[in-house]
Amino acid sequence: MPVELVEKMLTGDQRALARLVSAVERQSAEVPEIMQHVTPLLGRAYCVGITGPPGAGKSTLTDRLIAHARQQGETVGIIAVDPTSPFSGGAILGDRIRMQQHYLDAGVYIRSMASRGHHGGLSHAAKGVIKLLDAFGKDLILVETVGVGQTELDVVAAADTTVLILVPESGDAIQTIKAGIMEIADLFVINKADRDGAERLQRDLQMMLHVRHASDGWCPPVLSTQAHQDLGIVELYEAITTHRRKLSETGQLTTRRRQNRRQELLDLLQQQLLAALTAQFENGETHSGLLAQVEEGTVDPYTAVQQMLVESGGLWR
Amino acid sequence: MPVELVEKMLTGDQRALARLVSAVERQSAEVPEIMQHVTPLLGRAYCVGITGPPGAGKSTLTDRLIAHARQQGETVGIIAVDPTSPFSGGAILGDRIRMQQHYLDAGVYIRSMASRGHHGGLSHAAKGVIKLLDAFGKDLILVETVGVGQTELDVVAAADTTVLILVPESGDAIQTIKAGIMEIADLFVINKADRDGAERLQRDLQMMLHVRHASDGWCPPVLSTQAHQDLGIVELYEAITTHRRKLSETGQLTTRRRQNRRQELLDLLQQQLLAALTAQFENGETHSGLLAQVEEGTVDPYTAVQQMLVESGGLWR
Repeated sequence: MPVELVEKMLTGDQRALARLVSAVERQSAEVPEIMQHVTPLLGRAYCVGITGPPGAGKSTLTDRLIAHARQQGETVGIIAVDPTSPFSGGAILGDRIRMQQHYLDAGVYIRSMASRGHHGGLSHAAKGVIKLLDAFGKDLILVETVGVGQTELDVVAAADTTVLILVPESGDAIQTIKAGIMEIADLFVINKADRDGAERLQRDLQMMLHVRHASDGWCPPVLSTQAHQDLGIVELYEAITTHRRKLSETGQLTTRRRQNRRQELLDLLQQQLLAALTAQFENGETHSGLLAQVEEGTVDPYTAVQQMLVESGGLWR
Repeated sequence: MPVELVEKMLTGDQRALARLVSAVERQSAEVPEIMQHVTPLLGRAYCVGITGPPGAGKSTLTDRLIAHARQQGETVGIIAVDPTSPFSGGAILGDRIRMQQHYLDAGVYIRSMASRGHHGGLSHAAKGVIKLLDAFGKDLILVETVGVGQTELDVVAAADTTVLILVPESGDAIQTIKAGIMEIADLFVINKADRDGAERLQRDLQMMLHVRHASDGWCPPVLSTQAHQDLGIVELYEAITTHRRKLSETGQLTTRRRQNRRQELLDLLQQQLLAALTAQFENGETHSGLLAQVEEGTVDPYTAVQQMLVESGGLWR
């Protein structure tokens, strides 16, 4: 029973939380009911999206951010959607061992989500888990992804503050980083900043950000860190706090969250419509003649879609 | 007038082709009409998708494949959906100059398409351009993409033969290559095969492919090339030809193309449904109360979507 599980979770029961997370992750039929019970409790947690190319050191940096946030007395939830992350099992043993300190800390909840096998539902699943951690009472939620796919971009875009982690070597590859991420990042971090090329990347980023018009009155800072040496972590944490205060004071936090909820609705509607349509096609319930003609190549898909839309008589009245 | 432009294109008019390509690329309102006239002419060209991580040498390899295909007397169309490609302007000057031989060859048509600014329509646009080049009479169509995004995966998956280009250095990063591509590739190429790690990658790939069940009776070969030295190009071309013959003889080419057309219809339907829905939301024509509640966070999106689907009374009757 979802209701009872949610109530149990709200008493602080970690096992109830884990069961709900699993239900959301496999997009079980109980998700709507779970979300219905959780929704009134949402909005207290602050969500930070952390992204960047493979090898940028996101996991180490996340690890240090967790430690610092814990020192500040915050409880932390982490969702790792990253095949190379130690959280999700892709990385070297040393990272894994280091992370165990957090696994033993009841104030920290870590969940890794694989990119595989979600059939496009990963971003919904991740957003659902963020909500569960929010309702559970975590103060800070970190969502870590490799910034390569649209799904991951969607997840990170749904955060309150988005941090893009680069390394000096990223300079040359900056064009291949998913363009959208450069545009939505609120904070830029050059990790491994002791390496060659850090100054140049700093300059290039500053120039790019100078060109980008700060329509929301926020000019994204470019920070330097060396996560392995624990350098720059406090500054990063403070920059996140500054951005958070800025969003709150100007009312932009409310606006962003409204937009995100609207986007989530649209995405979900699209997903479920497609699922319904595909099922109807598979069962031959609808337009089977037209579908066969498209498959044979005698009718083009554009004409077929036009006809289907006309025949549906306007979808929503 | 689309009809007249299509007729002009069919006489071999390159400028008419270019205008149609532009219309398809910006997803103009004339696309359905264009496609209606083009559809009866499709299916003669053979389409090869070429993908791989940045720096794998896809563009050089494509360049050499073009040259070899031309020597065989084939006309070639190239669509480059790759920010780092010389075709689309991202690469070093040397590559650009080298490509000019093909720009001056009337038997070759090159079109680069940027990943930016298509708002999810890129895969439809690319598929539309493939059709135009097919109708125009090109024998071979090469579609080159960086294999990082879902859109690019969609485009490459629509090809008759899909080639994944790797370099010895890709070995470690193989996990970060979009998983789907490993599964749909018909041919694997290790380019820059004189570098360290080539043998190991060869072994790893063979092992992976050994595990993968060849349900279609095709075990993807792993080829070695050095595109800069023009080594292995003939063998790659022949492997493509072998795969093509195999697909034709077993009837799989027909099956694949049917599935691709079906998929294109579903994708297009999804895109246009979403566009219609978004417009209706924006205009406040539908469910504005429910939308406002979702934005405020008082109703969760899952419940809202369920209600919308119920109220629509079953979409297609």
